[in-house]
Amino acid sequence: MSRTAPEAAASTENPTPVAGVPEDSPVLAVARRAREAAAELAPLPRTVRDGALLAVADALEARTAEITEANARDVARAREAGTAEGIIDRLTLTPERIAAIASDVRDVVALPDPVGEVVRGSTLPNGLELRQVRVPLGVVGIIYEARPNVTVDAAALCLKSGNAVLLRGSSSAYASNTALVEVLRDAVADAGLPADAVQLVPGEGRESARELMRARGLVDVLIPRGGASLINTVVRESVVPVIETGVGNCHVYVDEAADLAMAVELLVNSKAQRPSVCNAAETVLVHAGVADRFLPLALAALRDAGVTVHGDETWAKAGASAGVEVVPVTDEDWGTEYLSLDIAAGVVPDLDAAVAHIRRWSSGHTESIISRDTAAVRRFVSRVDSTAVIVNASTRFTDGGQFGFGAEIGISTQKLHARGPMGLPELTSTKYVVTGEGHVRG
Amino acid sequence: MSRTAPEAAASTENPTPVAGVPEDSPVLAVARRAREAAAELAPLPRTVRDGALLAVADALEARTAEITEANARDVARAREAGTAEGIIDRLTLTPERIAAIASDVRDVVALPDPVGEVVRGSTLPNGLELRQVRVPLGVVGIIYEARPNVTVDAAALCLKSGNAVLLRGSSSAYASNTALVEVLRDAVADAGLPADAVQLVPGEGRESARELMRARGLVDVLIPRGGASLINTVVRESVVPVIETGVGNCHVYVDEAADLAMAVELLVNSKAQRPSVCNAAETVLVHAGVADRFLPLALAALRDAGVTVHGDETWAKAGASAGVEVVPVTDEDWGTEYLSLDIAAGVVPDLDAAVAHIRRWSSGHTESIISRDTAAVRRFVSRVDSTAVIVNASTRFTDGGQFGFGAEIGISTQKLHARGPMGLPELTSTKYVVTGEGHVRG
Repeated sequence: MSRTAPEAAASTENPTPVAGVPEDSPVLAVARRAREAAAELAPLPRTVRDGALLAVADALEARTAEITEANARDVARAREAGTAEGIIDRLTLTPERIAAIASDVRDVVALPDPVGEVVRGSTLPNGLELRQVRVPLGVVGIIYEARPNVTVDAAALCLKSGNAVLLRGSSSAYASNTALVEVLRDAVADAGLPADAVQLVPGEGRESARELMRARGLVDVLIPRGGASLINTVVRESVVPVIETGVGNCHVYVDEAADLAMAVELLVNSKAQRPSVCNAAETVLVHAGVADRFLPLALAALRDAGVTVHGDETWAKAGASAGVEVVPVTDEDWGTEYLSLDIAAGVVPDLDAAVAHIRRWSSGHTESIISRDTAAVRRFVSRVDSTAVIVNASTRFTDGGQFGFGAEIGISTQKLHARGPMGLPELTSTKYVVTGEGHVRG
Repeated sequence: MSRTAPEAAASTENPTPVAGVPEDSPVLAVARRAREAAAELAPLPRTVRDGALLAVADALEARTAEITEANARDVARAREAGTAEGIIDRLTLTPERIAAIASDVRDVVALPDPVGEVVRGSTLPNGLELRQVRVPLGVVGIIYEARPNVTVDAAALCLKSGNAVLLRGSSSAYASNTALVEVLRDAVADAGLPADAVQLVPGEGRESARELMRARGLVDVLIPRGGASLINTVVRESVVPVIETGVGNCHVYVDEAADLAMAVELLVNSKAQRPSVCNAAETVLVHAGVADRFLPLALAALRDAGVTVHGDETWAKAGASAGVEVVPVTDEDWGTEYLSLDIAAGVVPDLDAAVAHIRRWSSGHTESIISRDTAAVRRFVSRVDSTAVIVNASTRFTDGGQFGFGAEIGISTQKLHARGPMGLPELTSTKYVVTGEGHVRG
């Protein structure tokens, strides 16, 4: 019997170092435990993972008092710090909200299991059997802002897809997140999963996030969820592969051949139905050929919806005629994700100019065209390079729930791995399994 | 008519700055031109792209003299620098080799077009039509070493999949690559594609590669092809998303229930059939229960194949009995991709110890198990987290050609986007196209 191989194999005292992070960092310690947990998790069958999630849902309800108590401390701290009521509302957990979170977890249990799906398979000419099979990614890190419900949502999606999860929430929700993760860990451990499959990244400062971003080889992917500044920081600084989510500078293009009544309705819905989310429209571009007729209709409807228009000269003139105030648009407006009842508005000479404008300013999330002209639609769809191109419908439909994915961990605006709403399959990788009976290459 | 929108749209004088790269960098200039070319390329139908590739193949044959002349300068320079003959051979282009490269391009033309494939699609409950469609990635950067045939191979695969390509070869092949890219650009331009769809990254120094790695927003993905040091540098330094390829520290595990004659044959084929490639085996682990019988057979067969065994104590003892020299194995050996007629060899107490050893030392490329025991095979396959797990066959089968993909741009050893041999679909992303008739969200 060899000493070298099994000893080397069992060695956890000699772990892979991570450049730029102190060896005794508590962040590395949780990442290493997550990696061990991921190895245990990957081969478990669906019933075990589903059982753990049902236990999580039950435990959230049973231990609601603990959670709301911890949450009250975060809320009190936020009030003392003079935080805006809107943000405090998003931070607050009530028994009803906790019940809703538990119910969401049960919905995740019911979704199809992505792990083990045979993505493609064939018997090769030499008789080798080739299968490409979905497997968990391994360790997923989530860096997110205020809302503590993300803690449970993200953990549920990761566990369902067989991944270990490292949660790095905002310091404003640290007490709530700590309580929630304790409930989650206890529940999954009771159900026979490793508790370390769910861990909070220790520390409230920027340093802990920075160390997480350096833990390549321990963390398989980082998903930032939050505002543009958080996402940009992670994209810029992370050595771990990142899936970029969420920033949506979305455009509505009203073509010369648009049904103008439909266009007004879609524009208002895209902008104003829920302005604070990433699939809300931030810019409208109108074909010059219908500007005379469309602008007065749009200005009235946007005013009635409480929307401030930041318009170019044509919009300004139309505003003056209609008695609606139009704020002059600037380059900054074209590049802004307002997330408010504001919209940038321009007139373009033709469809290609709209496409060029979108190429220049869009964040690549969602763009829509409103047109009855099949050739125009075809040209727009083939030339606009965004996650979603919407034809004669509201931009608000780019959403995992609307797409029928059951749940989403975010909307990826990058091109690699996952693009658009990310459901469970997007939290997996694949591996090839090749089976022969002594096949050699000649 | 607005001035603001179309002017902003057309603006190329105000391009996105790239952090850490001088605005007048020639690398940024080619990346920006590639981005423009990618936008023109994406909507072109297959016939146009295929026509350009056929023109490329013809031009390579017609302009062979130019190419071999330029190549002769690189070869002369390499000889003067005292380069090893093996590397000079890989650098050398003969008319026969150029004809073979042209023939490979024609093979790529014949492959199915990945662009436009509907990956999934459905009609949502509200009547919206949802389609997820393959689209080109955009601009693909390839950073590669000595062999100038990669210049044409990579360009052909990128063009076939609708991408613009930035080629950054090694300085030792700069004259050859310059000549090849000139031929490619002329041919694609004659066929109606933008010449800037194929560009060589200017400059021979490290700085030009570094600038390419910073061009996030202009380059969609970087694929390094070459040795471990090149790949690690790109992975560590790139701000552009990277697909890690190629390092293969592959393992053969001989289970207690192995057919030992098959195991010997597979071990020798995995190690020695072509030792210089990434899917060659670098370590063999043997179950203790069969070590007594297997090691003498393996030692004799490996010796006959010219392989040096770096073994643990058990292998050393077996070597002493059999009169075969066994070099003592070190931790460094377990972690080494030899790419030569060397193999690290250990004995493990059981299958789980083999899995743990692989988890500790493998690069995640290819591992094989040789066993007649279905339970052992199932356990190994579900617990080994590598790109390919091979059952009762040679590790040498992890290969795009062997898998029937027609061609490959490399073998990804990472988990995001693409894992394993990368064919044409792996050079694409997707976008969602959502079609309604005035659908709004309520």
